[in-house]
Amino acid sequence: MASAIKQGSFQPSLSSYQTPLSVRLGCRSGAITGPTAGMAPGYVQGNLAVLPQELANEFLRFCHANPKPCPVIGMSEPGSFKVPTLGEDLDIRTDFPGYLVWKDGKVIADTTDVSEFWRDDLVAFVIGCSHSFEEALLQEGLPLRHIDQGTKVPMFRTSVRCTPVGRFSGRMVMSMRPLTPANAIRAIQITTRFPSVHGAPMHVGLPELIGVADVMKPDFGAPVEVRDDELPVFWACGVTPQSVLMDSKPDFAITHAPGCMLVTDKRNTELAIL
Amino acid sequence: MASAIKQGSFQPSLSSYQTPLSVRLGCRSGAITGPTAGMAPGYVQGNLAVLPQELANEFLRFCHANPKPCPVIGMSEPGSFKVPTLGEDLDIRTDFPGYLVWKDGKVIADTTDVSEFWRDDLVAFVIGCSHSFEEALLQEGLPLRHIDQGTKVPMFRTSVRCTPVGRFSGRMVMSMRPLTPANAIRAIQITTRFPSVHGAPMHVGLPELIGVADVMKPDFGAPVEVRDDELPVFWACGVTPQSVLMDSKPDFAITHAPGCMLVTDKRNTELAIL
Repeated sequence: MASAIKQGSFQPSLSSYQTPLSVRLGCRSGAITGPTAGMAPGYVQGNLAVLPQELANEFLRFCHANPKPCPVIGMSEPGSFKVPTLGEDLDIRTDFPGYLVWKDGKVIADTTDVSEFWRDDLVAFVIGCSHSFEEALLQEGLPLRHIDQGTKVPMFRTSVRCTPVGRFSGRMVMSMRPLTPANAIRAIQITTRFPSVHGAPMHVGLPELIGVADVMKPDFGAPVEVRDDELPVFWACGVTPQSVLMDSKPDFAITHAPGCMLVTDKRNTELAIL
Repeated sequence: MASAIKQGSFQPSLSSYQTPLSVRLGCRSGAITGPTAGMAPGYVQGNLAVLPQELANEFLRFCHANPKPCPVIGMSEPGSFKVPTLGEDLDIRTDFPGYLVWKDGKVIADTTDVSEFWRDDLVAFVIGCSHSFEEALLQEGLPLRHIDQGTKVPMFRTSVRCTPVGRFSGRMVMSMRPLTPANAIRAIQITTRFPSVHGAPMHVGLPELIGVADVMKPDFGAPVEVRDDELPVFWACGVTPQSVLMDSKPDFAITHAPGCMLVTDKRNTELAIL
């Protein structure tokens, strides 16, 4: 690619949303208002949690204590809506396709632009998401049923408690993917390489031990069948911070709308530790 | 430790069999005639397969095609009973506590010294064993029930077929260790680092899929309970070469007696790839 660029050749994009910047600009202009799955393949997508500075340090400590559900991949300076480490031309207020604005634990706005809600004391946290490790799993040939059937991954509020820090506490949300035992072992190996996007699974095989009575009844997303020759494999999920925000009822917060992520300039492969 | 040695201090050994050489000399003199588990902690122990040169190349190709059950960690030159890469002072004929001598697939001798059976055309294969990865699991605090109850790990002739090569073929033997799901995930991560001693598990959780109808009825070793909050985790087992030898009925072969390994000068930590 580098030499092609030097030689002045031109590689047309397969769609309008192959590069992270094109997706961010699409969100900013209002052209993209829905899920980012499949956009800008190869690039890291992130969840959002925005909190007043007064709460932000405590939330950072909470994330630090719970790195599997809440892996922070970037954060802003107080009051800033930039996260330069994730993209030079990046505006937290406009570059997600959708946002939820929370007051005292309740959604007060569902919007595509939070500029009007921005305050000088806000801190933005961008949190790693499973899209990155799913790409790695797919590249290794592992089938992911929710993708095959075009639905959102099933997610469960488990009985596993996050490590509480200050005002933040709550149950861990986990996403579930059914895999054959051999593929489950391979998936554990692959996702272990991606600690900043939830890493290795939290659980495999005995869902009742983590408070999941029925794998066909997720709390979020759509159900997927677990066949007789498969094990349900559970990963810590980036919906956990939202769940914790709900439980902790901060007076003000902004999150991304489900499925509507920030597309960053970071490549998924950069997150692999091995 | 290095500086302590330089300063001339003296560290007495905890028992007579703390070093690999002391174990090998104990076997050679006839002082040790039983299992080597727990001897010379930290050092690699190996299984044995000895074959006439006429068969040896085929067996090496078989091992190469089946690296998980048959990881070759050292082999001799034809006719030689030395494997210098595993220990300078090492004699394949005497340094195991016990041997089985096979003729046409049947045991013709169960002995502590195979010098009288040695021939100029024999090739010795030393094959990695699970002791090495079990040490790593124990050091990470994972409980291993067969060790807690002082019995031999349960092993199963599964329905999984080895990749056949020439005259060698047969079912894969796997050892089973019950672990909680979280510990199973951790064990997969840890043993992945040790590809030359069976590596990551072959199977987890659904034993009927690999032809194991009853986990309490192993083909070799002693049964261990799998509790309600545990999954049976199966690793490829170094007994597989013996099982294959039995199936393939070579006219002559020597193996170690079960549990009676060669203690090499290699450290377990040398086998870790990460």
